[in-house]
Amino acid sequence: MTVSNIYAVILAGGSGSRLWPLSREIHPKQLMKIDYNYTLFQSAFMRLINCVDDKNILSVTNVKLESQVRTQLKEMQEKFCRKSSYRVITEPEGKNTAPAIALAVKYVEKLQKDRNSKEDPIIVVVPSDNLILNNDTYCETITEGIKLAQENYIVTFGVKPEKADVGLGYIKAKNNRKIRAVAPNGMKVEEFVEKPDLETATEFVDSDRYYYNSGMFVFKASVMMSELKKYQSDIYNIIKHAKISSQTPTVAYQDFKEMPDISIDYAVMENSKKLAMIPLKTDWKDVGSWEAVYDISEKDDDGNYLMGNVLDLDSKDSLVYSTSKLITTIGLKNTVVVETEDAVLVCDRDRVNDVKKIVSHLKEIDDETQYSHKTVYRPWGYYQVLNTGNGFLTKCIYVNPGAKLSLQLHHHRSEHWVVLEGKAYVVKGEEEFELAKGESIDIEVEEKHSLQNPYEEPLKIMEIQQGDILDENDIERFEDMYGRV
Amino acid sequence: MTVSNIYAVILAGGSGSRLWPLSREIHPKQLMKIDYNYTLFQSAFMRLINCVDDKNILSVTNVKLESQVRTQLKEMQEKFCRKSSYRVITEPEGKNTAPAIALAVKYVEKLQKDRNSKEDPIIVVVPSDNLILNNDTYCETITEGIKLAQENYIVTFGVKPEKADVGLGYIKAKNNRKIRAVAPNGMKVEEFVEKPDLETATEFVDSDRYYYNSGMFVFKASVMMSELKKYQSDIYNIIKHAKISSQTPTVAYQDFKEMPDISIDYAVMENSKKLAMIPLKTDWKDVGSWEAVYDISEKDDDGNYLMGNVLDLDSKDSLVYSTSKLITTIGLKNTVVVETEDAVLVCDRDRVNDVKKIVSHLKEIDDETQYSHKTVYRPWGYYQVLNTGNGFLTKCIYVNPGAKLSLQLHHHRSEHWVVLEGKAYVVKGEEEFELAKGESIDIEVEEKHSLQNPYEEPLKIMEIQQGDILDENDIERFEDMYGRV
Repeated sequence: MTVSNIYAVILAGGSGSRLWPLSREIHPKQLMKIDYNYTLFQSAFMRLINCVDDKNILSVTNVKLESQVRTQLKEMQEKFCRKSSYRVITEPEGKNTAPAIALAVKYVEKLQKDRNSKEDPIIVVVPSDNLILNNDTYCETITEGIKLAQENYIVTFGVKPEKADVGLGYIKAKNNRKIRAVAPNGMKVEEFVEKPDLETATEFVDSDRYYYNSGMFVFKASVMMSELKKYQSDIYNIIKHAKISSQTPTVAYQDFKEMPDISIDYAVMENSKKLAMIPLKTDWKDVGSWEAVYDISEKDDDGNYLMGNVLDLDSKDSLVYSTSKLITTIGLKNTVVVETEDAVLVCDRDRVNDVKKIVSHLKEIDDETQYSHKTVYRPWGYYQVLNTGNGFLTKCIYVNPGAKLSLQLHHHRSEHWVVLEGKAYVVKGEEEFELAKGESIDIEVEEKHSLQNPYEEPLKIMEIQQGDILDENDIERFEDMYGRV
Repeated sequence: MTVSNIYAVILAGGSGSRLWPLSREIHPKQLMKIDYNYTLFQSAFMRLINCVDDKNILSVTNVKLESQVRTQLKEMQEKFCRKSSYRVITEPEGKNTAPAIALAVKYVEKLQKDRNSKEDPIIVVVPSDNLILNNDTYCETITEGIKLAQENYIVTFGVKPEKADVGLGYIKAKNNRKIRAVAPNGMKVEEFVEKPDLETATEFVDSDRYYYNSGMFVFKASVMMSELKKYQSDIYNIIKHAKISSQTPTVAYQDFKEMPDISIDYAVMENSKKLAMIPLKTDWKDVGSWEAVYDISEKDDDGNYLMGNVLDLDSKDSLVYSTSKLITTIGLKNTVVVETEDAVLVCDRDRVNDVKKIVSHLKEIDDETQYSHKTVYRPWGYYQVLNTGNGFLTKCIYVNPGAKLSLQLHHHRSEHWVVLEGKAYVVKGEEEFELAKGESIDIEVEEKHSLQNPYEEPLKIMEIQQGDILDENDIERFEDMYGRV
């Protein structure tokens, strides 16, 4: 059986800083359920499996997000009984979309070669952080894009703009220049303008020739490579020499570090003469800022969107979003309030794009709340630090059914475990045994140990660490089912 | 040595609901350090010890706050090397100021009688929730008040009003009617108006004859009793028949329940013809609402008061107060943001008096955040619930040096303790032993136990409760150093 030469790449490495404090560097918006049953990334995946051969669906992410992306793909695989194990391309660090796409193109070329195919692969690139609510015509539109790409166009997908959004790119269609032959809805593109100022964006919205750029693209691998060579030679030169194995597609860290931090929009789209555009007929929404979340939310009669444990008195046109504690609001106007376990944002709705500035500042001062949530996700489940003090740290650890933590030891801390829910299977030195609910055990410094949950119920344990150095990096791994040794 | 017949009573039973979420029913504002080294209650106490004989200083509070009030008094006693053990009068439940003052008057009469004194005692009543920043003339003014009280006046203390505050009472001085004979600054009072509407309050501030009521009073016991009899006979009748022991001054719960929930201002001051007033020369501030806290705080150039872990971008005229997590604010105007471990308030500064409505509503729906903080104070220290789940509850427990929890047992839960900091002395069934840092122990259901800290370092333990019923009321006490058996 021949495999199609159509590939799809989901870009899943973004940090979504304008949705802080909900979105974090190591748990960004595309990996979260904003208001639905699936994460935005999973929804992007679901749309694609109907248009592209399973074996040809890839994701690009960075090393910090890799295990979450794999876990979310595994969930989808089980849910939809798909046999493919989806490929994840892992960047050594998070860069922007141009390096990510270049890496994906190079990898797809390698896959094609390994399959002894001489065909030029066609690649559908989709972001993982959009909300697309009406999918009926999605595959049809993608298929039309593929036809245009075969004619050597770089195909973009445009969305009729509703308001002047300075966080988006705009595509100007050539007047009445449809490419009727292969794609009845396709249009040539006159220009591509990434993130215009407010005045320009307002003009664009008033004109009927401008469209939002949806962030989806279709192109031939060779066409994208030649455009990168022409307009972004530093990326091209690094990618050209990158060693790619089809098992673990990587670029050496040192090489990747040299990559410019640039989006595909600035790197290629603003320059390329090969752009075409197809209008998207689906209900496409950017979820780029809290204002965008406000836009897509169902408001009450006072224009408020109140989510979670919220008690309001007389507020208007506000978004209030609680994930843990009670938020009470009185007499607010046009305000965004977002609460997470370790940070609160209170922001004038007209200033939501400045959340990015806050996040940059937090990054500068190395504030944890920029990087991670109090809940930290791992391939085997997740944990929450409950409190810390002089020589101790306590965690609540959640281990998924069937999962196990690596066989490991710590040089500077002892651990005391108490089973709160479920049962644990424990390796402690040379011994192995079951630990029932309510039972406890001590793991000494330098003692090899492993915490496992081979049972069907989730396992919850309390861990009390004691020692002079209490650091996640104090870990020596011997065996790990997630390849982290 | 004869003891003076001048007494002082600190009212310390209020709930301070307009300062929610910082102030809670069982940890109200007067027992908190708002921005200073001492709590407001302790500051009120410190002012009095220079004017009134130690032995004659009493506090009135309610049963929920009693142990905290005693702990705070003990701290002051140790700090200032005073020998007196101060008396705390405990109401069976929190009512308003009229029942509290009536109870105090009755108790002082009883004390005088026990001392075989025939003199009519004079009582200085002070609130515990004001901020008085310049105390130089405080005792002088009180002493002048005492002289006027001896002339059978009920003496109030007025503060020149700065702005129309609808949360306060106003005293109108009789035109030029000074009582020069005994008190050069004393004036007769024309009327007393409790909590006027905004229009009326504004007129009052514009006139030079109105003063804020500071909430401090001086009167003869007999005079207050006769005024209560005249204007508030239901309180008078209950108090007249109340049984008072000089050791533990109490009124039977059933009697006290009948007391009307009314302030001394409405009950007596608005009616009495015996009022006099002395202007306070100290810098007196009400700390009744978040607006009042904003008023007394030192603002930056943008009119902001930012306290705790706060990161702001371009806000103006706002108060942002964090007690635990990071708060970020962008472009706020005239807004109050207050964060505590379990609740956040975001409120237009013009609406701060409506915080009371929120608290009433939370009380109606039995929301914990109205009643207590996540940190719960006990006579031996305090605890925090870290998390709860199916059949378990975890707590971090802090035991003060020298303190011990009662000898107790639980019918429905087992407990597992791990020492995080310090050392514990544990009674478990018939055994007694020391538990060092890092060590752990299991307490079974129905097993008698006690946790003690006879050492000099504070003790911190992690407690993991397991059982079908996890309730603070599942406790049977056998011995308790705080009289809670």
